Parts: sequence; structure tokens; C-alpha cells
Amino acid sequence: MVHAVDNQPPHHVVIVGGGFGGLYAAKALANTSVKVTLIDKRNFHLFQPLLYQVATGTVSPADISSPLRSVLSRSKNTQVLLGQVNQIDPEAQTVMVGKEAISYDSLIVATGAKHSYFGKDEWSEFAPGLKTVEDAIEMRRRIFMAFEAAEKETDPEIRARWLTFVIVGGGPTGVELAGAIAELAYNTLKQDFRKIDTSEAQVILLEGLDRVLPPFAPELSQEAAKSLEKLGVNVQTSTFVTNLENEIVTMKQGDVVKQIGAKTVLWAAGVKASPVGKALHSSTGVELDRAGRVIVEPDLSISGYENIFVVGDLAHFAHQNGKPLPAVAPVATQEGEYVASLIQKRLSQETLPPFNYIDRGSLAVIGQNHAVVDLGFMKLKGFFAWLFWLFVHIYYLIEFDNKIVVMTQWIWNYFTRNRGARLITGAEVLADDFSQSVNSPQPAPVQEREVVKV
Amino acid sequence: MVHAVDNQPPHHVVIVGGGFGGLYAAKALANTSVKVTLIDKRNFHLFQPLLYQVATGTVSPADISSPLRSVLSRSKNTQVLLGQVNQIDPEAQTVMVGKEAISYDSLIVATGAKHSYFGKDEWSEFAPGLKTVEDAIEMRRRIFMAFEAAEKETDPEIRARWLTFVIVGGGPTGVELAGAIAELAYNTLKQDFRKIDTSEAQVILLEGLDRVLPPFAPELSQEAAKSLEKLGVNVQTSTFVTNLENEIVTMKQGDVVKQIGAKTVLWAAGVKASPVGKALHSSTGVELDRAGRVIVEPDLSISGYENIFVVGDLAHFAHQNGKPLPAVAPVATQEGEYVASLIQKRLSQETLPPFNYIDRGSLAVIGQNHAVVDLGFMKLKGFFAWLFWLFVHIYYLIEFDNKIVVMTQWIWNYFTRNRGARLITGAEVLADDFSQSVNSPQPAPVQEREVVKV
Repeated sequence: MVHAVDNQPPHHVVIVGGGFGGLYAAKALANTSVKVTLIDKRNFHLFQPLLYQVATGTVSPADISSPLRSVLSRSKNTQVLLGQVNQIDPEAQTVMVGKEAISYDSLIVATGAKHSYFGKDEWSEFAPGLKTVEDAIEMRRRIFMAFEAAEKETDPEIRARWLTFVIVGGGPTGVELAGAIAELAYNTLKQDFRKIDTSEAQVILLEGLDRVLPPFAPELSQEAAKSLEKLGVNVQTSTFVTNLENEIVTMKQGDVVKQIGAKTVLWAAGVKASPVGKALHSSTGVELDRAGRVIVEPDLSISGYENIFVVGDLAHFAHQNGKPLPAVAPVATQEGEYVASLIQKRLSQETLPPFNYIDRGSLAVIGQNHAVVDLGFMKLKGFFAWLFWLFVHIYYLIEFDNKIVVMTQWIWNYFTRNRGARLITGAEVLADDFSQSVNSPQPAPVQEREVVKV
Repeated sequence: MVHAVDNQPPHHVVIVGGGFGGLYAAKALANTSVKVTLIDKRNFHLFQPLLYQVATGTVSPADISSPLRSVLSRSKNTQVLLGQVNQIDPEAQTVMVGKEAISYDSLIVATGAKHSYFGKDEWSEFAPGLKTVEDAIEMRRRIFMAFEAAEKETDPEIRARWLTFVIVGGGPTGVELAGAIAELAYNTLKQDFRKIDTSEAQVILLEGLDRVLPPFAPELSQEAAKSLEKLGVNVQTSTFVTNLENEIVTMKQGDVVKQIGAKTVLWAAGVKASPVGKALHSSTGVELDRAGRVIVEPDLSISGYENIFVVGDLAHFAHQNGKPLPAVAPVATQEGEYVASLIQKRLSQETLPPFNYIDRGSLAVIGQNHAVVDLGFMKLKGFFAWLFWLFVHIYYLIEFDNKIVVMTQWIWNYFTRNRGARLITGAEVLADDFSQSVNSPQPAPVQEREVVKV
């Protein structure tokens, strides 16, 4: 049991992970009577919902990132530690950061999820995902390099492959990526090349279920698909990717097998829970779901350990309607704040009703000035939905300078359709080993396989 | 000889390099009667004078970069080619980009310079330089990681090494870096750490000559040194670095040898010309100076080849006062514009007087709100010099959104002293192999060497 006793060292809350769940828990505990240690392996909080805008050249990584130390610098009870937790000992009440053991009174685990290839990890080379700043920069490099390579390519077959972009996964990230790439190809870059017509590019969005944006109401999924197609995206639902190899995407639609030759494949499909979930399972025996998420109690603690909490994408919370809450920022934020509040209540011998997620709606943007918003009691689409989306995102960006800068870039982007942050960085770009340097090493000859254009 | 003849294909100007020299030549030739091909190995123009602000976390790379295609998209006579020139054949009038030969009528070589370790290339690992976006991100990673590592370090000796920053070279870049790091340590980061006092950091600027900012008037060098010292920088002039190894900087001051233990050493000393200079020397016999720069004629062409021009940092132009023009943006810009104009004059059978650099002054910024400006007829220092510096830099940023964004970041930085772009990215940061992951692999024990604190 947790008690507040005078003349004792303050109750120590250790938070692992500085994403939405961890950071909002830390913010809620700022300058309270507890002592807080926030551990993250990165020195910044990342506003992941806008990461696709880094990948497609609208904003810079720093515009959607906030240094954790700076966000929490006025929380004098809070310490930020850069490091990775590799062990949790629930009996000794310690976490190991490198070789250092840190004791806790309450532990909040908020290490999130990363993208998953459903066991096909070899696909990652060809089809990068989008979870970190580095992922986004790599995607950006591949997307813009594809247009550059196409401009230099004389073989029309290979040029078409450079101009084919396949996005796997029709959730919000996939929809947003597909919309942004379509706009790049059909608007932004159109005037910039002299040998290729970028509007010949193909942007293909593949989704396994029967509609895009499955968490939304069916009519908004339909609206989103319609808007994507208007932008020029080829939307393929009920489509399962069965192989990604040698610049060929193989998929199944019902009983039909199709193949697409593409140099750029972006992964926006499954996620799997952070390995800290597994560590927690080994040390506490807590149950995990199939995706590796930790099954939590109604108060977000884990079975048998009332002072260990899991929040955000790593938590499987199904006490509300039997289905686990979705892996989105508002869930993580509310969970983090709830646990912060629960810890404080306990210290003053009070109680708190079980966690209850208040769903304020779902949003997804489709290209330049179109979005779908599902507020439950109301559904918006089109320009007003986009304005709504825009203000919500600006509002939730942590720091004021980021708000201004992102706003500026969006206004600039809106009026000029230009994207200033389309730098190809990271790998040195040499002209003569172009095709080697960009994607998979050994392109298969297209002719040898039965390639069906979808 | 170059002639404009009707019904012939347009005169083809090939520009190699999209820095200030190359880009301003291309801009001056936009929508004229010539055909222009601009070749660069990067897809963006980089505003190098502000690169130190990326390295110290004020702005993002994209804020000071402009996609070349977007800058030139309305120049319908201009084609941008991503690639590296590896051969020049002055007789056939072709340049090789990878395996592709591109013919030119006039050639402008503007491939600039990179940093040089005076033959000690092994120093580069320990003391990175600052010429590319990747360089800046690596410097940023090392600077901010040093504070993080110090926060975790319990050995006071090693902690002091983490908090010692040595900048080699007292030119504008070195002065600007030293000022910015001093402000980070003594202002920005002061509230952000709980275990270390960042104001215990040492920032040491080493310069071989007897004063910092050698191109400026002596009284401004003195003013700059005074301002740096007020910010907390330890300025050491007449100091030659003789070795960089195992986290030890060895230097000579007159006959005295000194050593400093430091984990972070930043290189802002010599530059050497791009290797294209050497290629030009082999194929045309043109003379190079000791730094590898191409000695150009009064019209910036090279001896014996009136249709090959060299501009910017790669050019050694000493026809004005016997001394080569300095390697700064205004020289490159004016040279690029001069050559563009000369090519057009020749096509209409006109002549142009030899190139004449108009020196509008030198500027360097020292920390938050202090600068020195040498306009020749007038010298400014302090706050007004800083305002002047600020407006000049905003004015010359190529794109409007960059102007707004950089301005926003500077205003934010000015009022809050915060730096939002201080992301540690690139290498994955693991807690337990911290010291290994950051800098040189084998720290020498400090005690075994005679280390003199300067």
C-alpha cells in the first residue's frame, strides 16, 4: 500500500517512455508532492500524428518534437533520464537503466508500440515503417529520390517502377501518406521536372479490410476513399499483401493473386507492442494479448501489482465495451493523466472510479484541404473537417514555437503547394550508383513474373 | 568562340554545384535565351552561414535549405540534375555525370570546398567539421549528448570532460559556434538538468593567429574576443593544435605545450578545395594554389579555356589586390552573377570589364544578441550590429517560408532562450553503452598525461 507519511522521502513515481502517455502523466504530476523520474531513450517527445508530414516534406522533425527536459524544466520535482529500461523487478521495486538500478514506489510503463511486419521482418528493408524521426527521414529520402531517379531513367519500364508508390495499410497513417504523396506527384512537383511527367506516377493504397479507416463510421470510410480517388490514389481494399521482394508487391484479392512492380513501398500496416511488455510478463506474470500488449485492470494497473501501471499503445484496456481501446494519442493522454491522478488520490487515502475513456472523435486528413472527422454525435467531411483537424493538431502541439512554425508551413503549403522540407539527406547521393543506393539491391526482371497492373 | 546563331540549338550552360556561386549564376540565367543544366549531388541549396544554428539546436536543416528544383521551377530554360560530376573533358566539351556525358558550350564550376584537417584526416573522427547538413546533425548530437552523458556520470573527472567543449578555429564559424554553445551551457540548459550544473561547462576557442576573426579590422576582433569572454568562452589565440587523440587536445602556445581533456571537439579551422579542382587541373593544366583552389583569370575563366569558369570557394581570384578573395557567400554570389552576365554579353558580341568584387562588409554573430559588423566605412558592434546581422541573413534566405520560420525561431529563442531543435537523432541512444556511442572509442586515462587546464 502507498501511504504519505511525514518526514519520509517523497513517493517516487518512475515513468518509462516520454510519448503521449508518459509525458501527460509527468505533466499532471508536475510540482506536486511526489518525486518523478521520466526515462526515455530519446531526448524529445515526438508528436507522432504529424510524422507523415515529415515523411512527405512539409515540416521538419524539430517542428513536431519537443525536448523533454525543456517541456519539464519548470517541474522541479521531475527528473528526466536519457536511457533504456532493460529490466523491471516488481519485488525489489526497481527498474534497470543500463547498469543503474532505480527504485520506484509507483511505476508507469508507457513504452508504446513499433511497426510490425506480422513475422515477415525481412520486408522491413523494402517497405520501411513510420514510427521514429529516423523512419520519417528515410521515407522522405526514398520518396523524393524516386522522382530524381525516374528523371534520370531512360528505360520506360524501370521509370514506371520508380514512379509507383505502394502504401500498405489503410488506417489513418496510410491514408494520410497516400494523400500527401498523390499531391506531391500531381501538384507540388509537376513543374519541377523536365523529363518526366510526375503526374504519371501511380499511388496505390492497399488495405486488408473492406474499407479504409476501419475505426471510423462506414460512411466516412467511403467519403475518405472517394476523396483519395479524386486526388488520384488507387485504393484497393480487401487486399492482403502476401510477399514483398525484389521490387515486386504480391497481393491476394479473394482468390486472385496480383503483382505490382514498385521501387517505393511504405508500410503503414500492423504495429506490435514494445518489448517492455514481454519483460513485464516475465517478471509479473501479467497476461499479454496477441499483439504483445499488456492486459490491464480497470484502473490501468496490472494484475497483482497495484503500483505498476501500463498506459498508451502498450496497454490493452477492454473494460469499457469489451474491445481494446485504439492506439491513438487521446487514449494515451487520458490514461497518463488518469494514473497521475490515481497515484495522488491514493496518497491522500482517496479513491478514484475506474478509468473511462472519453472518445472525443476520430480525425484523418486526406491531402491538402480535405479531412474526415467523426465526433460520434456529428460527422464532418471536406474543407471544414480539414480546418477542424488543423486546429486540433496545432492546439495539441506542445510548444508555442512549434505551433507557429507548423502553422506557417501549412499556410505556405496551402497557398503555394510547395513543400520546403523535402531534403534528401542521410545517405550520400552518388549519381552512378543510384538505383543501388535507394532501395533493394537486386531488382527482379519484370518480364519473368506475371505482373498485373492494378 | 561563342556565337549566337539563329536556328541553332541554344547555347548550353552547364553549372556544377548549387551553392551560392552556382545557384546565383543559374538564377541570373533564368528564362534567358541560353539553356541551363544545374548539376548538384544534393537536391537542395544550403544556406551555409546559418549551419552553426542547426548544430546548436536553433533551427532545422530544412529551414535553411531550399530545394533546387523548387527555386528554379519557373526557369523554364533550366534543368536540375541530381548527380556527381566525376570527369571534365575540355576538348570534347563534356562533363561526365555517372556514365552519362553532358555537352556544354559554357561550363561554370562551383563545387566549393570542404573542411580540411591539414593532412591529419584521422582527426575527423574525434573533431567533426561543419560543411553539410549531416555534419550539423552530428555536431548537434554530440553537443547535446555530452550534457546528457555528464548528467549520468558519477566520476567528477569524466564528467568534467563531458562538459568541456573545444572549438578549433577562430573564424566566423568557430566564433559563432563557441558563442552559441556558451549560451546553451550558461543560459538555455541551466534549468533543464537536476544533477549537473551546466554552467560548470568549459567552452574553449582555439585560434592559431593572434586574434579571432582575422578577416575583420583588429578592433572588431578585440571586441569579438571581449564579447565571447563575457559569454564565458575561454579564448586562446596564437595557439596551434598539434594533436587530437583519445579525448586529449594537444596544443602549442609559443614553446609551451598544453593539453586539455575534452569529449567534444569541433573543427572550424581549415578548408580545402573540392576535388573537382584537381580534375580540372589534370585535364586543362590550370594552376592550383596550395589549398587546391583554381587560379582564375580576371574574368573568372581559366587559362586557355575561355568557356570554363570557376566561381565561389573553389576559385582563387587575386586580381583585385593581390590577395585571394575570401571564401564567403557574397564573393560566390557576385562571381556567379558576373559569369552569367559575361556569357550573355559574349553571345551578343559585347564585352564586360573584369570581375570586381564589391565588399559590402563582414559580419559575425556572438551569442544571443551581439554581433560585429565591418562595413569598411563603418564598424558596428553589440545589439545594433546583431539586428543588422539578423536582417541581412533573413533577407538572403532564398524562400519566403524559410524567412518566416527562421524569424519565428529567432524571436522565440530571443525571448525564451529556448532552443527547440535540439534533437539527438541519427544513432540509436542506448543507456548502457553511452560513452562508447558518443565519441572516440578509447578514452585515455587523464592521469597518465600531463594535463594542463587552460
